[in-house]
Amino acid sequence: MADEVTLLDFWPSPFGMRLRIALAEKGIKYEYKDEDLRNKSPLLLKMNPVHKKIPVLIHNGKPICESLIAVQYIDEVWSDRSPLLPSDPYQRAQARFWADFVDKKIYDAGRKVWTLKGEEQEAGKKEFLDALKLLEDQLGDKPYFGGDNIGYVDVSLVPFYSWFKAYETFGNINIEKECPKFIAWAKRCLQKESVSSSLPDQNKVYDFIVEMRKKFGLE
Amino acid sequence: MADEVTLLDFWPSPFGMRLRIALAEKGIKYEYKDEDLRNKSPLLLKMNPVHKKIPVLIHNGKPICESLIAVQYIDEVWSDRSPLLPSDPYQRAQARFWADFVDKKIYDAGRKVWTLKGEEQEAGKKEFLDALKLLEDQLGDKPYFGGDNIGYVDVSLVPFYSWFKAYETFGNINIEKECPKFIAWAKRCLQKESVSSSLPDQNKVYDFIVEMRKKFGLE
Repeated sequence: MADEVTLLDFWPSPFGMRLRIALAEKGIKYEYKDEDLRNKSPLLLKMNPVHKKIPVLIHNGKPICESLIAVQYIDEVWSDRSPLLPSDPYQRAQARFWADFVDKKIYDAGRKVWTLKGEEQEAGKKEFLDALKLLEDQLGDKPYFGGDNIGYVDVSLVPFYSWFKAYETFGNINIEKECPKFIAWAKRCLQKESVSSSLPDQNKVYDFIVEMRKKFGLE
Repeated sequence: MADEVTLLDFWPSPFGMRLRIALAEKGIKYEYKDEDLRNKSPLLLKMNPVHKKIPVLIHNGKPICESLIAVQYIDEVWSDRSPLLPSDPYQRAQARFWADFVDKKIYDAGRKVWTLKGEEQEAGKKEFLDALKLLEDQLGDKPYFGGDNIGYVDVSLVPFYSWFKAYETFGNINIEKECPKFIAWAKRCLQKESVSSSLPDQNKVYDFIVEMRKKFGLE
């Protein structure tokens, strides 16, 4: 049986982008379904009844929810090409640690940057830049977190680059000035077809965030 | 070289208990070091400079942080006995999903039960019991989440049972009445030496929470 793969997603979601990159790295063809999150499809509610969130990977009728879990699933099922997690258990644990760090720090701190004001926003900006700097240290002189090729941490992290114009504009920060190695790494990732075809343009995400801020009464 | 294994932990931590159970299931001897979290040891700060939290597993000098990541590491390194994660990729993804659910729901909702009052506490109690009921559904008629033996979800979840007297007393709830199958499962887990030797007595945790509540000014 040929694999039937469907991705329930929402185009500006960094979490959804992770699955797009992982599927592209593995060369998996899939049907992409963009969800209206204010009017979720019956399919989404059926496939992720617990969290009711995108992204959901549906493989031969069975759902896999939570983006980092789905990326690991993709890596385990299509293990014959482009390994994302290292084979050594300690290196695997380290990759999982940093992907988890991205989940715990980058999204939340980034959200503070574009939704808060005054002192709270300043604290968010510091938290955000400190997290990027820690990640820069972790990258060191390697081209990618995964080494010579993009791996699990790269896949988990690079989607947030598509939000950088929004973070920079609303936070009044210059990320390239603060974290030049981080930006160089992100641009290196974008040279990969798997990444460039999976990330929306920063301007498009920025326009989306402008609309979101209006809805949240942040203008 | 014999494996040198150290666990930096704090005895009432459900997250630390996960590692204790996993190490016991695998029959690994280790040195246990109980941390004073108000005065963290130089070793803890060195081994987990990012989060500065317990538990930390130190294996031959190298740290593994974040409890679910450490449990997976233990399962991968000592793979010859008591497998915790299933071998099938889809079943692995499901196990990871429910362990992640425990992290996202049980600890936070439980904390609301013992730290909040009034309407907020009522909401926390509902959230907590709803999560337990979802887990009961997931268990179904199996003796353990892992099937015939305890697995990754059991290891992730059963530590919270040691907090149940505190949740019940401060939340004024009867968990056994609401979720009898859950309690039957927890008691079944406690018949395992690996679990009973890793969980403190509910009364001891309760006394600890009484002290915590005093410190937080909740009396």
